[in-house]
Amino acid sequence: MENGSKLTNKKWGFRGNTSLKVEDDTTTIRGAFNLLISNINPSDKRTVIPMSHSEPSAFPCFKTTKIATDAIADAVRSNEYNGYPPREGILPARRAVAEYLSKDLPNKLSPDDVFLRMGCKQAFETILQVLGGSRSNILLPKPGFPYYDVLAKLYHLEPRFYDLLPEKNWEIDLDSVVAVADENTVAMVIVNPGNPCGNVFTYQHLKKVAETAWKLGILVISDEVYGHVVFGENPFVPMGVFGSITPVVTVGSMSKRWMVPGWRIGWLVTHDPNGILKQHGIIDSIKECRFISSDPPSFVQGAIPDILANTKEDFFSKTVNTIRECADYCHEGIKDVPGVTCPTKPEGAMCVMVKLDMMVFKDIKDDMDFCVKLAREESVLLLPGISVGLQNWLRITFAIDPSSLQDGIKRLKAFCERHSKIA
Amino acid sequence: MENGSKLTNKKWGFRGNTSLKVEDDTTTIRGAFNLLISNINPSDKRTVIPMSHSEPSAFPCFKTTKIATDAIADAVRSNEYNGYPPREGILPARRAVAEYLSKDLPNKLSPDDVFLRMGCKQAFETILQVLGGSRSNILLPKPGFPYYDVLAKLYHLEPRFYDLLPEKNWEIDLDSVVAVADENTVAMVIVNPGNPCGNVFTYQHLKKVAETAWKLGILVISDEVYGHVVFGENPFVPMGVFGSITPVVTVGSMSKRWMVPGWRIGWLVTHDPNGILKQHGIIDSIKECRFISSDPPSFVQGAIPDILANTKEDFFSKTVNTIRECADYCHEGIKDVPGVTCPTKPEGAMCVMVKLDMMVFKDIKDDMDFCVKLAREESVLLLPGISVGLQNWLRITFAIDPSSLQDGIKRLKAFCERHSKIA
Repeated sequence: MENGSKLTNKKWGFRGNTSLKVEDDTTTIRGAFNLLISNINPSDKRTVIPMSHSEPSAFPCFKTTKIATDAIADAVRSNEYNGYPPREGILPARRAVAEYLSKDLPNKLSPDDVFLRMGCKQAFETILQVLGGSRSNILLPKPGFPYYDVLAKLYHLEPRFYDLLPEKNWEIDLDSVVAVADENTVAMVIVNPGNPCGNVFTYQHLKKVAETAWKLGILVISDEVYGHVVFGENPFVPMGVFGSITPVVTVGSMSKRWMVPGWRIGWLVTHDPNGILKQHGIIDSIKECRFISSDPPSFVQGAIPDILANTKEDFFSKTVNTIRECADYCHEGIKDVPGVTCPTKPEGAMCVMVKLDMMVFKDIKDDMDFCVKLAREESVLLLPGISVGLQNWLRITFAIDPSSLQDGIKRLKAFCERHSKIA
Repeated sequence: MENGSKLTNKKWGFRGNTSLKVEDDTTTIRGAFNLLISNINPSDKRTVIPMSHSEPSAFPCFKTTKIATDAIADAVRSNEYNGYPPREGILPARRAVAEYLSKDLPNKLSPDDVFLRMGCKQAFETILQVLGGSRSNILLPKPGFPYYDVLAKLYHLEPRFYDLLPEKNWEIDLDSVVAVADENTVAMVIVNPGNPCGNVFTYQHLKKVAETAWKLGILVISDEVYGHVVFGENPFVPMGVFGSITPVVTVGSMSKRWMVPGWRIGWLVTHDPNGILKQHGIIDSIKECRFISSDPPSFVQGAIPDILANTKEDFFSKTVNTIRECADYCHEGIKDVPGVTCPTKPEGAMCVMVKLDMMVFKDIKDDMDFCVKLAREESVLLLPGISVGLQNWLRITFAIDPSSLQDGIKRLKAFCERHSKIA
């Protein structure tokens, strides 16, 4: 490779873009997950119980509806959706999403309020890209989703954190919101139904959130990817209900309610009855974002009206009932596990935060140490709280098939008993 | 709306991100297209002939193969691809693309050289994002695709332009490449088969391109979205063949060869036998890009092996033969059109550049004026050369159904005769 050696001796102008570098240490979900996987004991012949990430679609009990798979298959077979989608997205698809979401809203959405995106992730990325500016900051919940932190930095938004209150069913500490906000704050992000906490905000609380945001003159970005995945006392109330109090951008997708995260069917929706987002160029910037990022494939857009119009209510109730049973079983089962307490019964989404009492354990350093040893000794994967911003907590995903969940809780109990000071 | 008036009087911290603002004047393809559409005469009952953009999938003669639509339908119906795709993309899909492209390469690709993207557009965006830096510049062809210019600026790369030579079948003017390059040049972009010129580079010419890039110490980014869509004397030679001379990044997709641009199945492939891209952190940065942008949906990735392995050769030959007939008809037909000359017979892709002799016309100002009047008087859409960087040229898309093409050329001829000085 004489040529090669010549080449590698040359000076090349290019360098990889270091601003793309994403932290990959064990304080991120991915980093922690990789560490846990690497600690699984191969000689343990039991199946690994994945209670560390919310991916129920792998389990037969959480299979999506045939209505949805048929809609995609029919759309692609029609050959009507082989060409580029229109720049603004296929109108019937945007109209269908507008109608689907409007069922729960006082101000009906128009198709022009809906921007189709590749899942909730791209929807969130789009609004950060729109708001991005070197001097601005954005308020994120703690505990929360570290991916938001990473993306905010990437788009030159300083992430600041407000607290969720475990003793108040993980309601937002609005005083902490006001405390961290300043004149450069552009938005606050809320996640409802809550990941990682499994809580569901009340109408009254969301109204207070809107009023606080209005006083601060900031946008509320509401992550509702778990919208309608609720099974407790509080109904799901979309933040868009309060769009007349303060401007709201909702990001959502079909990923969780239809159990198809891999389909990447998401949306960004603006609730702007007072025209504030329009007036500040936010709407135009969102439109421009479509020029530099890809919409869902044409045939996927073409299938959306069929999926949203025809999915049977009993599909939703069946899956939500299964998740409720899992949540209840998890919450009850934890009560018998020494050193682990669940401050609140989960009422939505697919996971819950539980607290570790480190005093109980004789030989466990912290939550990360707990999860590594649990993976090694019991082939059970749980997410250390540090990965979502709360040290010495755990995030337990209960939305897995019930038998695996029972097995997982049993192994967790055996592990904690084995490591507790009181033998 | 007392509340609303209060709101709109408040100071809000956020502003739309103006760096997302994309030029939308008539010198861009979209801008020109919108202008032409607005000039169509509604009282003209003839069908509009769309020879302004390469979107053949709308025509029955360019319908995709059932193998492809069935592969997608089967993948989604299998329920095996409802979950998130792995971060690096589904291995069988990457392997299938590696094998598909390796057929034409001396150094076989590994699945790790393949990055699945949402169409060629996202693939190109990814490499620009990776190379982006405030002091760098990138070399683009003229005539070329204005979208590249816009994206380069967005990612802080100064676009500089080298010439394509019409008298040499649109070969690259390598002297102009050397002339515009400097120590901050990171890459040159080539498009082969050529859009907008319809040319196909020879092996010898591509080798010279690689040697020039190597001397300059720059990367070659080869847009091969029209790969294998060739019908002249020159065979299609992928730039990756010369990866051992200088590092090459190929962007491609199934859009054009399979007639499914709306499916957004694309790839970015690195040809780096000497490890220069790896050494400079380019490979790692491309991997990081996947963290901040969406891969194709899982079931689409799941269908790729089936589509690439089983599409029949006669589907390709049938579509390419139809395009050849269109190209030949277009080239012949132009010969009888006063004021319009086609310097070279198109040999690939779906469009060709033709030159206007403004002296011939009595009442036409320039290429834009020509296209506006043609749209108004004949309901024929052609792209003014100014939109791709060459004033007083036209880009004619010939890949439309043959009868429409014949009608379009006839109307073009009538238009030019009507407006020529010699009645």
